[in-house]
Amino acid sequence: MATKTVGIVGATGLVGLEMRKLLADYVPQAKVFLFASKERPTEGILDLAQSAAQVSQCDVLLNAASSELALELRQKLLPHQILIDNSSGFRLDPEVPLVVPEVNGELLRSQPRVIANPNCTAILLTVALKAVQQWGLGRVIVSTYQAASGAGIKGLEELESQAKAVAQGEKVPAPQVFPFQLFNNVLSHNTAIHPEGEEGAGYNDEEWKVVQESRKILGEKSLNISATCIRVPVKRAHTESVTVDLVKEVSLKDLRAAFAQAPGVKVVDDWTRNHFPMPLESQNQDLVLVGRIRKDPNLAKTFHFMLSGDQIRKGAAANALQILKALWN
Amino acid sequence: MATKTVGIVGATGLVGLEMRKLLADYVPQAKVFLFASKERPTEGILDLAQSAAQVSQCDVLLNAASSELALELRQKLLPHQILIDNSSGFRLDPEVPLVVPEVNGELLRSQPRVIANPNCTAILLTVALKAVQQWGLGRVIVSTYQAASGAGIKGLEELESQAKAVAQGEKVPAPQVFPFQLFNNVLSHNTAIHPEGEEGAGYNDEEWKVVQESRKILGEKSLNISATCIRVPVKRAHTESVTVDLVKEVSLKDLRAAFAQAPGVKVVDDWTRNHFPMPLESQNQDLVLVGRIRKDPNLAKTFHFMLSGDQIRKGAAANALQILKALWN
Repeated sequence: MATKTVGIVGATGLVGLEMRKLLADYVPQAKVFLFASKERPTEGILDLAQSAAQVSQCDVLLNAASSELALELRQKLLPHQILIDNSSGFRLDPEVPLVVPEVNGELLRSQPRVIANPNCTAILLTVALKAVQQWGLGRVIVSTYQAASGAGIKGLEELESQAKAVAQGEKVPAPQVFPFQLFNNVLSHNTAIHPEGEEGAGYNDEEWKVVQESRKILGEKSLNISATCIRVPVKRAHTESVTVDLVKEVSLKDLRAAFAQAPGVKVVDDWTRNHFPMPLESQNQDLVLVGRIRKDPNLAKTFHFMLSGDQIRKGAAANALQILKALWN
Repeated sequence: MATKTVGIVGATGLVGLEMRKLLADYVPQAKVFLFASKERPTEGILDLAQSAAQVSQCDVLLNAASSELALELRQKLLPHQILIDNSSGFRLDPEVPLVVPEVNGELLRSQPRVIANPNCTAILLTVALKAVQQWGLGRVIVSTYQAASGAGIKGLEELESQAKAVAQGEKVPAPQVFPFQLFNNVLSHNTAIHPEGEEGAGYNDEEWKVVQESRKILGEKSLNISATCIRVPVKRAHTESVTVDLVKEVSLKDLRAAFAQAPGVKVVDDWTRNHFPMPLESQNQDLVLVGRIRKDPNLAKTFHFMLSGDQIRKGAAANALQILKALWN
């Protein structure tokens, strides 16, 4: 295979930085261009607006920037180019596959020109749900424990500066990213709530992404799913508490075996040591940790579990690179 | 009314300290004895084992110590005495009322001699559920965001020492109370998991308390309820994400009105400012904050909400004092 070229757009954000870190693990032979917009000159980073020549040399563009930029990149896409977009711009576009390789990687076989990378919380959830979809997903209810870095570098820095101020006995600076202090607190997700009379009234944007994107990824348009998305004072990795009503009754043993065999999943479920999925272990690796697997005491077809995964890696950068690798294999 | 005497047993723990702080708000005329066991001599605190005379003078004993001690206190209870017990010792005893005054305060009318104070998570949950029980509780699913201080002073201190170590760039000391580091992490609740083959297999003790105690408090023996209890790095106040399938269909407006009118509840549900229940606002007061009230987009009889409440106050000390006040009124 001739050397191919990848361009990372938004190379200075948290997801872009992670893509740069992981790129060699997934496509070691690739040539790389790094782009950022409105960026002060930084060594090795090209100003996207001034770099049409380099952009045109890319076989694949990985967009880790905004959905507005994704639209622009798509419009200017050259015939030989592919766009893997981490923004929410095209995720629900019926023409664009929304791909989690472990779940619906077969959509990549047709070599689509634009592929959407899903919302982080939806990626982690669907990797786990895929393991039990064989028994029919009657209903899914999820509550999340999401990290500050899901709101980008500024969200992460805001949590860290609050922790530092408290430790030093100083006044906590007024929050800019989150509506209230996140340190030593729990906050409903900081995205807009859909107003009354609109679709998903009362849900916030993050929750509605989880609902709609999970349906598309799992190929179940009318999946009965609800999410409550909540931030906790954790730097990195999202955790989720999940209830699933299956269509068929399944034993605990079979549930465990299904998770143990599922691609992208690692079972962490030690009932005697209270060792379960947690951010400090799920961060900085690509597997979704699954545990607390247990059957409901009242409902034979219902079970509960929790998961934790690195929302910057499997929830964003690594998922995009898995897509890239699959396209090139 | 003649001056009555209250004895607080376990007066040096987090709940005992809170009872001492709040006592004058609830029963301003009461005379108070403070007891602790195995305690070095502390000013104003009596050694329980050496204070039979003072114990016998108490009209009411508030037990904020262990369930073992509760058993002993109950056995030695004098004919004129009442025991309000915050331990889990008698909570499921069919002879002992398990009381949340806003929910089932009518059980106090018969002037029971022993009254159990419920689990903190169950108290906060049932105060909220009482508001909607009029429409029938078909199913309840709860995921919790519980504070370190729920594990007592040592749990609180462990979180604080971890935060301090991280802020100072030092090694985090090995955890003693929680099985893993809680700072910058999310942990499944640190109580024992019920083994396979036993009742509630796979559930931890905290979750099973929520299940069983909520049923008893709400007077619904076969209530279909499941809980997932999780600790977050928050010092004080528990938060809960709750899904309720009602038996009857209810409008969002009626749900809101029911919560707004419910005793012990304060609605914090500002969709435009993303202002919802959170520990930093629910702590150090007695109301349960309720918000994120929204109807499920798929199921007409289902709605979701979140709540936050101070587990040391309404979840323990204040609930016990409300019981005491009701008995003396």
